Amino acid sequence: MSLERIAESFARQGMMRTLDARIDAVAPGLVSLSAPITASVGQQHGYGHAALAFAVGDSAAGYAALSVMEPGREVLTVEMKINLVAPAAGLRLHAHGEVVKPGRRLVVVRARVEAEDAEGARRDVALLQGTMIPVGDPA
Amino acid sequence: MSLERIAESFARQGMMRTLDARIDAVAPGLVSLSAPITASVGQQHGYGHAALAFAVGDSAAGYAALSVMEPGREVLTVEMKINLVAPAAGLRLHAHGEVVKPGRRLVVVRARVEAEDAEGARRDVALLQGTMIPVGDPA
Amino acid sequence: MSLERIAESFARQGMMRTLDARIDAVAPGLVSLSAPITASVGQQHGYGHAALAFAVGDSAAGYAALSVMEPGREVLTVEMKINLVAPAAGLRLHAHGEVVKPGRRLVVVRARVEAEDAEGARRDVALLQGTMIPVGDPA
Amino acid sequence: MSLERIAESFARQGMMRTLDARIDAVAPGLVSLSAPITASVGQQHGYGHAALAFAVGDSAAGYAALSVMEPGREVLTVEMKINLVAPAAGLRLHAHGEVVKPGRRLVVVRARVEAEDAEGARRDVALLQGTMIPVGDPA
Repeated sequence: MSLERIAESFARQGMMRTLDARIDAVAPGLVSLSAPITASVGQQHGYGHAALAFAVGDSAAGYAALSVMEPGREVLTVEMKINLVAPAAGLRLHAHGEVVKPGRRLVVVRARVEAEDAEGARRDVALLQGTMIPVGDPA
Repeated sequence: MSLERIAESFARQGMMRTLDARIDAVAPGLVSLSAPITASVGQQHGYGHAALAFAVGDSAAGYAALSVMEPGREVLTVEMKINLVAPAAGLRLHAHGEVVKPGRRLVVVRARVEAEDAEGARRDVALLQGTMIPVGDPA
Repeated sequence: MSLERIAESFARQGMMRTLDARIDAVAPGLVSLSAPITASVGQQHGYGHAALAFAVGDSAAGYAALSVMEPGREVLTVEMKINLVAPAAGLRLHAHGEVVKPGRRLVVVRARVEAEDAEGARRDVALLQGTMIPVGDPA
Repeated sequence: MSLERIAESFARQGMMRTLDARIDAVAPGLVSLSAPITASVGQQHGYGHAALAFAVGDSAAGYAALSVMEPGREVLTVEMKINLVAPAAGLRLHAHGEVVKPGRRLVVVRARVEAEDAEGARRDVALLQGTMIPVGDPA
């Protein structure tokens, strides 16, 4: 695993900059990201848009997969399922991605997305389960 | 169905403005949206981020569901599955959402997302299948 | 595509025999299966079990993928999502699988499952979307 | 929660009898089932069919949801996603279902399916995530 590799890939994602997302924690097979819930990423009721929860959850899961790849490889999302379990209300979304089944051809991942309110309380807002595929040649 | 209702809800979605998305077509049970593929919504290889394909696909599907709701009701995404079938390369993503099973308690939806290149050629980049739930009281 | 290859693989599936399933149609990228709805594959209300709809839908999709593989290869299900849209009431389930995106590494598939009643009328009961992976060496 | 209610519902599922499945553990929001891996529920390579893993995983998840319902209510599967992470090799599949988000209108569930070999060793073969809906009137 390489922190630099994850940070460098993250920095190249325009979408992560647009969402003002940041990496909060990296460990082998585990990556946490977060992003603010603001009007510019809201849905029609003022909560964070489902696509915001997807964006941080999918990215946390993808970087968790990248954290267990050989140097030189990258990962792409093959498919992702998201269950939205509560409105994304509050100040910030926190996504925790994990590798549940590493594989040479495919990596199965999960992520949990929490919303943090002004008092620092957190509640689950989304659960993701999906598949990542390694691309590129090992260095 | 009410065009005004869909346009009004869409205008309140900060995420749709941030993505510079627009509604291209509305018919009962069918809604098409599109959004530009730019560096600010890209992933690490310069293609559109998976979250961009999700955002336009999920929204097209959600507005397709809204198009068959009684006045006064709105819809929320319960769950959504996305299969990414090709990189989101080109200038613009087009999402076509449709209701496949309307119901009083739940609405099953699908969406297809295409990427359009500089020559106007289109190829599928994502397929979505999910569930919407009506919320709010009929007017 | 080879009818023999599909028929031979199907005959080796104990589950398909247990469900009394049969292949009804094969074309490149399209396979239809059916199986009777009986008490021995029912759920607690007497309808066909969700697992029956899954079994015929997943198999129809898998054989659709196999129909576009090179000789000597087989396919396994990587992941599958099923939306159950109506109770599996009636006499027989019909599953129609199709390849929506063939690929060298992965094949994206869909299936639609219908229930047929005593009068021959059919209604959709399930929609599936998933991913198949080729295994084995080309002959 | 009522053990009798779960046992009684389970006994009415012809599919569970056909698969020779049994309930192994019940606690509020948690249900474990198991079923033998035999030739009659196999796929073309002799492993347990994906539909077997789905059947026990979906049922464990559904009964986990039922375990937190009011008396008189039952649950139906709205949608379920399964990721197959290893072949269902061995003697027996064990499915562990859990409620991850109980709700009045919908219940979000997960299940993990393990295969047990002749030495008693277990490995994960499938992960499920889905939605159950309560039906029927409270008693």
